[in-house]
Amino acid sequence: MSRFLDTRYLGIAPYTPGEQPQDRSYVKLNTNESPFPPSPAVIRALNADEVSRLNLYSDPTAGKLVEAIASRYTAALKEQGLSGIGERNVFVGNGSDEVLAFAFAAFCSRELGVASPAIGYGFYPVFAEFFSLPYEAVPMLPDLAVDPEGFKGIEATVVIANPNAQTGIYLPLSEIETIVSENKDRLVIVDEAYCDFGGESAVRLIARHDNLLVVSTMSKSRQLAGGRVGFAIGSEELIEDLNKMKFSFNPYNLDRLSILAGAAAMEDEDYFNLTRTAVMRERERLKKEFSSLGFSLTPSLANFILARHGGIGGRELYLALKARGVLVRWLGGELEDYVRISVGSEEQNEALLAAVRDVIKEKNL
Amino acid sequence: MSRFLDTRYLGIAPYTPGEQPQDRSYVKLNTNESPFPPSPAVIRALNADEVSRLNLYSDPTAGKLVEAIASRYTAALKEQGLSGIGERNVFVGNGSDEVLAFAFAAFCSRELGVASPAIGYGFYPVFAEFFSLPYEAVPMLPDLAVDPEGFKGIEATVVIANPNAQTGIYLPLSEIETIVSENKDRLVIVDEAYCDFGGESAVRLIARHDNLLVVSTMSKSRQLAGGRVGFAIGSEELIEDLNKMKFSFNPYNLDRLSILAGAAAMEDEDYFNLTRTAVMRERERLKKEFSSLGFSLTPSLANFILARHGGIGGRELYLALKARGVLVRWLGGELEDYVRISVGSEEQNEALLAAVRDVIKEKNL
Repeated sequence: MSRFLDTRYLGIAPYTPGEQPQDRSYVKLNTNESPFPPSPAVIRALNADEVSRLNLYSDPTAGKLVEAIASRYTAALKEQGLSGIGERNVFVGNGSDEVLAFAFAAFCSRELGVASPAIGYGFYPVFAEFFSLPYEAVPMLPDLAVDPEGFKGIEATVVIANPNAQTGIYLPLSEIETIVSENKDRLVIVDEAYCDFGGESAVRLIARHDNLLVVSTMSKSRQLAGGRVGFAIGSEELIEDLNKMKFSFNPYNLDRLSILAGAAAMEDEDYFNLTRTAVMRERERLKKEFSSLGFSLTPSLANFILARHGGIGGRELYLALKARGVLVRWLGGELEDYVRISVGSEEQNEALLAAVRDVIKEKNL
Repeated sequence: MSRFLDTRYLGIAPYTPGEQPQDRSYVKLNTNESPFPPSPAVIRALNADEVSRLNLYSDPTAGKLVEAIASRYTAALKEQGLSGIGERNVFVGNGSDEVLAFAFAAFCSRELGVASPAIGYGFYPVFAEFFSLPYEAVPMLPDLAVDPEGFKGIEATVVIANPNAQTGIYLPLSEIETIVSENKDRLVIVDEAYCDFGGESAVRLIARHDNLLVVSTMSKSRQLAGGRVGFAIGSEELIEDLNKMKFSFNPYNLDRLSILAGAAAMEDEDYFNLTRTAVMRERERLKKEFSSLGFSLTPSLANFILARHGGIGGRELYLALKARGVLVRWLGGELEDYVRISVGSEEQNEALLAAVRDVIKEKNL
C-alpha cells in the first residue's frame, strides 16, 4: 500500500477471480467458461481488415452491439406475444462486472445501500465496499435457495443473481416479480449471467416494472468470456443513468473488436441454441453421474453443478482433483462442503468423472 | 434520469468524446488518432486461432502486456544509463481513461481533492465530479503554458497532462521534477498520452520520487485507440493500490485480444519510431503552412496543432471545415478562438490545407 491511498480503502478486500494457473495444463472447470469456441460468425467478423482499423477509436455508443441486443431480445419477446425493447433500453459494458459496478455507483446510495442473498456472486460485497455502501446479506433458505420473504419491504437496492452464481438454483420468475412488486420504490437488479441454461429471463417484466434492471453477460452462453461483453436491459431512464456513469468514467469502454464480436455472437441464435442445449444436456448427465457416486447436488439450472460428498470435504476434493489435473472451484464460506464444477465438453467431463471416481476409490468412499 | 439515481450525481455533466458522425465520410482530424494502421505484428498476433479462444477468460493480471511494457521502458531507461523498471511498476487498464479513473478513486480523497491546470484534459473535472472530489483549476500562464508556480505547496493531488492535451505545450521535465519535489506529500500524476511526439517521459524520475505516477496510452503513438490499452508506471506501492481498485471494480478489464495487441505494439519499437517520426515531421509542416496562412499556433509537441486566425472564430472555422468534409475539434472555453487539429497522413493533411485555403479565400482573409 502506498501512503497516498485514500483511507476509505484501507479495509478493502478485492475480488479473487478463479485461479488461472500457468504451471501446467488443466482440465479447467473452475470459471464457468463455455467449452465451445465462439460462433464462426465471430471468427469471420474479427478479420485482418478490422484489426487494421484499430488505430481508430471505437464507437462510444457501441451502436452496432446495442442494436444486435435489442433486436435479439425483441424477437424473443415477440415470440411470446409481448412487445419488444428499443435500443434505448440497452446498456453495454466491458463485461457484466463493469455493468454491475456502474449500477452499484448509480443506484445504491450510501444512505440506502445494497441487499443481496447471503450466497450469490462474491463480487457484490466487494462493489459495495468499493463505493462505501452498507451491505445486507439476506439469509438463504435451508435448501440454499433464495428466500423471497427476506426481501419484503427491504430498505435497500436489491441485487439477486438468478440463477444463483454459486448454487445454480433458479428462482422462478413469479417470485422475482413478487419481490419487484413488493418493493416499488426500490430498484431490483437481477443478474442473469447464468440464465440461458434453463431459466427464463426477467426481461419480459421490464415493460411492467420501472424498478427492475436485468444484467447479463456474453461470457457464459455466448462464448465471449475473453471478449468482455456485458449488458443491461431496463427502462430508458435507468439506461440513461448507466450511460451517465460510463461517460463519466470510461466512454470508450468497449473496443472495436469486442463490439463486433458481441454483435456477431448475439446475431447467431442457432449457434447459441446448439451450444446451450449441449451444455444443459451434459449438466444433467453430470448430475446423474455424481448422484450415482454418492454426491448431493443442488438443482442447478446454470452451466455448472454444485456438489458435495459426505465422505470428503470440499477443499480436500478440490485439491484431490487439482492433483489429478482437473481444476474446479472451492468457494468456502457457507459452501465449504461443496465444489462448484463448470460443465465442460464431453471430453472434459469424462476426464472429470474419471478423476472423481479415482478419488472415491482411493478414499474408499 | 430515473428516480433511482443517487442524488450525488444530479449535477453530473459526463464527458463528451470527439464527435464520430455517421452521416458521411470525413477527413477525421478531431480525436488525435494515429493516421497509420497498427503494427503488422499486431495484425499477425490477432489471428483466427486467438479469436477462437475468446470463450476463455483473459488473464486478469494481463501478464504478457505488463511484461512487454516493463521490458520496453527498461530498455529505454538503460540506453540513458538509468536502471530499469520491474513488472510490479506497471499497471494496465482499458484505455488511459480507465487508468485515470482508478487513480482518481485511489489517490484523491474527498478531503484532499484534485488540482490541475485550467486547460488540460477535459475529463479530469468529470472524474472529480464522479468521485465527489473538490477540483481546483490552476490558472495558465498568458502564453497558455502550465504555470509550475501555481502548484507550489498545493493541498491536493496534482494531475498534469504533459504535453498538454489541448494546447500540445510540453512542460520540460525539470519543471515536472520541481513540482514533484516541492510537494513530497502530494501525489503528482503526469498524463503522458501525447509524450511520444517530442517530449521526454517522466518515467525516468520514478526511481527518485515515490510521489509520481506516470499515465500513458497506446491510443496515440501505438495505433490502438480502438483497442483500448492504457497503462501507468510508478512505485510498486502505487501500482498495488491501482490493482486494488481494478480487482474491486473490473478484474478482467482487458480482453484477450487487447492484451495481445498491446504487447505486440509495445514490442515493435521500429514501427513506433517510424510512425511517430512521420507524425512529428507532418506536424512541423502543418505548423509552417498554417503560419504562412496567417494563423497563430501554440508550440505543440503533441500529434495535433492548436491554431487560431484573427479573421475567423474557432467555432466558425470548425463549421466551415466540417462543411468541406474535414472534421477538427473546437474546444470552446478559454480556447474558443482556436481549433485543435490532429496530424493526419500526408494525404489527409493536404485535404485539410486545401479546405483551410478555401475558407481563407472565401472569407477574403
